[in-house]
Amino acid sequence: MFREQIKVVDCTIRDGGLINRHEFDPKFVRAVYKAISEAGLDYMEIGYKNSRSLFSAEEYGAWKFCDDDDIRRVIDGIESNTKVSVMVDVGRVNVDEVRPAAESPVGMIRVATYVKDVDKAIFLENSFSDKGYETTINIMAISRDMGSELDEALHQLHEESKAKAVYVVDSFGSLYQEPVEELVKRAKGILKGKEIGFHGHNNQQLAFGNTIEAIIHGANFLDATVYGIGRAAGNCPLELLVGFLKNPKFDLRPILDLISDEFIALREGIEWGYIIPYAIAGMLNEHPRDAMALRNGDKKEHYREFYESLTSTGLD
Amino acid sequence: MFREQIKVVDCTIRDGGLINRHEFDPKFVRAVYKAISEAGLDYMEIGYKNSRSLFSAEEYGAWKFCDDDDIRRVIDGIESNTKVSVMVDVGRVNVDEVRPAAESPVGMIRVATYVKDVDKAIFLENSFSDKGYETTINIMAISRDMGSELDEALHQLHEESKAKAVYVVDSFGSLYQEPVEELVKRAKGILKGKEIGFHGHNNQQLAFGNTIEAIIHGANFLDATVYGIGRAAGNCPLELLVGFLKNPKFDLRPILDLISDEFIALREGIEWGYIIPYAIAGMLNEHPRDAMALRNGDKKEHYREFYESLTSTGLD
Repeated sequence: MFREQIKVVDCTIRDGGLINRHEFDPKFVRAVYKAISEAGLDYMEIGYKNSRSLFSAEEYGAWKFCDDDDIRRVIDGIESNTKVSVMVDVGRVNVDEVRPAAESPVGMIRVATYVKDVDKAIFLENSFSDKGYETTINIMAISRDMGSELDEALHQLHEESKAKAVYVVDSFGSLYQEPVEELVKRAKGILKGKEIGFHGHNNQQLAFGNTIEAIIHGANFLDATVYGIGRAAGNCPLELLVGFLKNPKFDLRPILDLISDEFIALREGIEWGYIIPYAIAGMLNEHPRDAMALRNGDKKEHYREFYESLTSTGLD
Repeated sequence: MFREQIKVVDCTIRDGGLINRHEFDPKFVRAVYKAISEAGLDYMEIGYKNSRSLFSAEEYGAWKFCDDDDIRRVIDGIESNTKVSVMVDVGRVNVDEVRPAAESPVGMIRVATYVKDVDKAIFLENSFSDKGYETTINIMAISRDMGSELDEALHQLHEESKAKAVYVVDSFGSLYQEPVEELVKRAKGILKGKEIGFHGHNNQQLAFGNTIEAIIHGANFLDATVYGIGRAAGNCPLELLVGFLKNPKFDLRPILDLISDEFIALREGIEWGYIIPYAIAGMLNEHPRDAMALRNGDKKEHYREFYESLTSTGLD
């Protein structure tokens, strides 16, 4: 029933960090790593590798920078076959600050990029690849870039990039199954020899369904987060994906314990999940920033007004 | 972009009634009917038509019985093209107590049945059809009845039933896209001249995605509820479905207002939605009753124990 090539990347701490300035307590991160390891998952993404010269350590927690020593502190002593991943954004990382893979607890570096920045992303990714890391390139906001410029980027990735996988990233949570099918097939058709990945956002409660759709059409790198934590509406819930995959090496129970012990309480303090303004942003293929601003103000439940503000085009 | 044949059946009060003993205040039901009418939806299902000789009016609210007069009280004076629907369960309705359609505010009666009871369902449905109602037959718990007995039932429905539509009902919220595709195609292949319906449950956050899947393969009767209200994990959120359908006669805004004004507060008092024990029941293709019992006890967040209780077969 299961497909051996499928790899699951837990993004709990990395994507979850977007709603708490990456300030997870090391004990919490350690508990997540322990559970993900016991669950038998392939990768755990622990944060962003941003340059300390660009962001202040006073404003952001450790998982905005992912220093090797901070990572070691939360993983050392835990028996694990789970590789640690970090994400970098184009323009926010200093390649020279990243040590060779042989000297680092990190096994994979994923480069997040928009279609327009794919040249810069390939440069970064190949630099990390040359340092011995597994690498992927994650094409963000792809629902806004589905024209011929996407094909061009995919051809360039095919020709120039050493990345193991290229991701379709539905940053706005706006894709339905049919465009997911179309995008995965298109990427597969161009990127011979690379795996296709899928990263969904859950604005319209479609992150899990779309991940299944991507699997059906051949995607083998799949992102998910514990209890769906992540920016705004959050992500594909890891527990659902593990329940679906039927891989005998995966064990759901440590993830269930983690939700019982940590995530129910966590969700009381920070907000993510099915929330109407995020659903509206998703159905209108908009960045969640306006919805996030609304949720931080005193009109957080004024949905009609918010919907009308996004649908009045201002073009007339 | 839109498909004119598609009909949306709002089940907010009917399915929502399963979590509050059908005790919605008439003012609330009136607000829902007004919003659904303004939104331009096709049907609103207002409850069950159970025989008063079988259930006590002291234990259950008005929407367990749906007396014509109670319905009139909440819809009279509201401009509307939305037809009122009621549901009946095999064995719980007295056909003689149901007046002819011409004398009733109800336009459609839907018969819920298991595969094994399809003979009784056809008898009921044809009786209501003969009284002038539009009718459907809704095959519940279909994920447990996908063998040849289902084909037999579908053939019998094709030959003997006057129902306008036959529904695939994923009562346990356990279906993924592929079985939805398979079931809709199978039903369509046998039931010439009838519409296919889909009713999802949201245990695994797939009710909306599965509804889209059913649409893709030709289902034209679609159930949804405001803010996904319904038993246990609830249903396909109506607001998402309306956002997807792109039917120019539908207006999302009255539904958004209804959620702002009524459903955010309602959800504070009664529980439905993405809750881990319901997700576990869905992935294991189990009735939600054990999960509902768990949520009413003092071990409501003991997920591992619950999971293990459902996966230890007791067959050894």
